[in-house]
Amino acid sequence: MKYSVITIGREFCTGGLDIAREVARRLGGPMYDKELITLAAKESGLSEQAIAAGEKRPSGSLLYNLYTMGSDLPLSDQVFVVQSQIIRGLADKGPCVIVGRSADYILKDRKDALHVFVHADMDFRAERIVRLYGQSEKTPEQRLRDKDKKRAVNYEHYTGREWGKSQNYTLTLNSGAIGVERCVDLLADLVGPIKADPPAPETAQ
Amino acid sequence: MKYSVITIGREFCTGGLDIAREVARRLGGPMYDKELITLAAKESGLSEQAIAAGEKRPSGSLLYNLYTMGSDLPLSDQVFVVQSQIIRGLADKGPCVIVGRSADYILKDRKDALHVFVHADMDFRAERIVRLYGQSEKTPEQRLRDKDKKRAVNYEHYTGREWGKSQNYTLTLNSGAIGVERCVDLLADLVGPIKADPPAPETAQ
Repeated sequence: MKYSVITIGREFCTGGLDIAREVARRLGGPMYDKELITLAAKESGLSEQAIAAGEKRPSGSLLYNLYTMGSDLPLSDQVFVVQSQIIRGLADKGPCVIVGRSADYILKDRKDALHVFVHADMDFRAERIVRLYGQSEKTPEQRLRDKDKKRAVNYEHYTGREWGKSQNYTLTLNSGAIGVERCVDLLADLVGPIKADPPAPETAQ
Repeated sequence: MKYSVITIGREFCTGGLDIAREVARRLGGPMYDKELITLAAKESGLSEQAIAAGEKRPSGSLLYNLYTMGSDLPLSDQVFVVQSQIIRGLADKGPCVIVGRSADYILKDRKDALHVFVHADMDFRAERIVRLYGQSEKTPEQRLRDKDKKRAVNYEHYTGREWGKSQNYTLTLNSGAIGVERCVDLLADLVGPIKADPPAPETAQ
């Protein structure tokens, strides 16, 4: 099986984003994450701020309601529709790695897509959240649970599927147990080079 | 990370057993599946028949009730306790692959255990169930759902965890999408040789 597109869902602070970035780098394709917001903003006519507000789905907030006015669809649903179109377009365009945004669901019918979910034990993630983002009033465990909850709710709202359920993914990895670098090796081995056009051989100038 | 013990849970007809057997063969350790029943029979004083009856958990059956009489624990629970002890003993004894029997839960605290769950799409499994076991009155899909349901109920009864939930495993694999042989390669690469004593080099006789 030759994979062209890799989608990566992940629990918070598992190193899933690092894995995505490194897999993309090794395999020679782009990685899309927050850039999707910018792309969505450009293509949809919705402003970047509106999309960011829609992604957070702060139901009842003044900003959210202001943006929602004048459309039949709630803003968050508009953002999901636009992002889905963009994700399909990116996958059509060429080999790439797409992080989050329920991309596994949006691209579930593509035979050339490898769907990955990265999780890890609480201890591993708690150490990472403090190291990367510092301490806060809440315990690391509570912060992780809150972040995961948001991702799960969002995923389940749009897909009707359970976030992190193994059957939704081609493979799932415990990055804490396996190690972030070993996860990259494993995915890179599985996928092989996804670069559409191999670089031209170097020639003496 | 060096893994000594691999546990493999699997949906029915995913090739999970083939994967387990081949990984064990390549890595030079034994694979335990139904043999556990025999071991359990020998070590527990429960007869082999009683253990087979307990595993099926046919609540209300005459055979089941007969075996259960005279013990505080239901027969199925006795079997689980005995099998858990045996699984721990096998893991202590040396490198091995253990299939099913909620071994991932029983050995969840072993740092040297790699916990795998194998699943696959319905089409892939439906083709396999008919090829391996022939047609029956029920549709292949119904037979697969019935088998999976039994495994899920059993797992959840003893572990309090959700069967196939990615967070319970080190990694999960879609054998239909990845391919059975590729799953073997991937696991063998990840684990490395688990043979405790490498074979003696061949010498001319």
